[in-house]
Amino acid sequence: MKLLTLARDLRRRKARERQGLFVCEGVRAVEELVRSSIPVRGMLATAHAMGTPRTARLADLTRARGAAVLEVSDAEFDSAAETESPQGVLAVAEVPARTLDALPVGDPLRLLVLDAVQDPGNVGTILRTAAALEVTATLALPGTVDLWNAKVVRSAMGAHFHHPALVCTPDEIDAFRRRHGVELWAADAAGAPVGDVPAPARLALVVGNEGAGVSDLMRARVERSVSLPIAPTVESLNVAVAAGILMYALRP
Amino acid sequence: MKLLTLARDLRRRKARERQGLFVCEGVRAVEELVRSSIPVRGMLATAHAMGTPRTARLADLTRARGAAVLEVSDAEFDSAAETESPQGVLAVAEVPARTLDALPVGDPLRLLVLDAVQDPGNVGTILRTAAALEVTATLALPGTVDLWNAKVVRSAMGAHFHHPALVCTPDEIDAFRRRHGVELWAADAAGAPVGDVPAPARLALVVGNEGAGVSDLMRARVERSVSLPIAPTVESLNVAVAAGILMYALRP
Repeated sequence: MKLLTLARDLRRRKARERQGLFVCEGVRAVEELVRSSIPVRGMLATAHAMGTPRTARLADLTRARGAAVLEVSDAEFDSAAETESPQGVLAVAEVPARTLDALPVGDPLRLLVLDAVQDPGNVGTILRTAAALEVTATLALPGTVDLWNAKVVRSAMGAHFHHPALVCTPDEIDAFRRRHGVELWAADAAGAPVGDVPAPARLALVVGNEGAGVSDLMRARVERSVSLPIAPTVESLNVAVAAGILMYALRP
Repeated sequence: MKLLTLARDLRRRKARERQGLFVCEGVRAVEELVRSSIPVRGMLATAHAMGTPRTARLADLTRARGAAVLEVSDAEFDSAAETESPQGVLAVAEVPARTLDALPVGDPLRLLVLDAVQDPGNVGTILRTAAALEVTATLALPGTVDLWNAKVVRSAMGAHFHHPALVCTPDEIDAFRRRHGVELWAADAAGAPVGDVPAPARLALVVGNEGAGVSDLMRARVERSVSLPIAPTVESLNVAVAAGILMYALRP
């Protein structure tokens, strides 16, 4: 398939899953991609972007990795891009093959579990924070926005390229927890204030949907719920901020 | 001025400052507004929105507060609204008169200072977090996006209506600090790890621009810089997440 047609096709989650490919948009994200070990299939750029030294250098780096660089018209570029101001640059690359079983298991171990978190910007920010705070992996349960959606990739600012982020089911998480002795906690406004109980060496923390919180399915499985003490005038924190504070508060 | 014309005019910062008015968009934000003590000038809604029980109730509450409710066409509504999916509902209300001098000063005292933070979503999320973590006030320095921009108001989810958020200059902050013995710290990747030094009872924390960080002007004034320890593979945290974690870590 031609690179432009492929990039357009990859706007659909089903196409990304079938092809095992994703689109990375914007100069900075593509720079992070080309610097990573992720195989790159090719890069698209507008003539305007190619006229800038930063994008020209990116094109050289992409070619040096054996991938094609295609100059396209503004209209062609816009037909493939999905994020706000993609700066005339996008790349197609391979979704890394990551599984729960391949995760490095040691002490400490920290997993962040996304239970139907829907906003791409929130999920991207959460992945960026999880990578920064050295969380072992982020696991997306069914109902969560696709981790390889272009908007998620953009807002994660390169976190995808080294932080293990993968999709799995509650049963797979249960099997992993039993095998490796990992406690399962949830972020829940009704939970005990975080910090009241020391965190175990191996911990998976579930954060729920922006509106509905943690699902009943996961609530039935968790061993403890923790909350952040917040003012009664405020209904909740933004999920990415809450996840960030909790990951920090529960750091090993 | 007619309500629709006024709402359109208020998309400009200069008009908001001249009139002392702002626009609040979306069902949930307008619900929070009508529940608050902020004087409401009026509400605009599409016929479709007025057909829903939640918006009809909002219209009743607005009228009960002595403010006008105007039904407008979809095209008229769209000509005034600025946020994504405003749900056919917006209200015009008065910017509360807040000054540094009117802040309650006691122990503990926590101020968050925004030094040219530009993204409306980030600033809204920061205000929501500051309100939740009971920060005394949020101060926006010149160069920061207008706190009363409709996108900031929307993403703050009602924080503006009770949390004191106001614009001031570095000199005004200096005068306030001298008068009340408030230490000035900055969030800076080159700073000492947060937690190495106990936070003083009265603390103002500066967070900087998304790309450039804290300005030279503020850097020259701060007494201490603090950082969050992050993985070397990650350049930085999102500013709203970093501010959230730091406010939590430095809580009284």
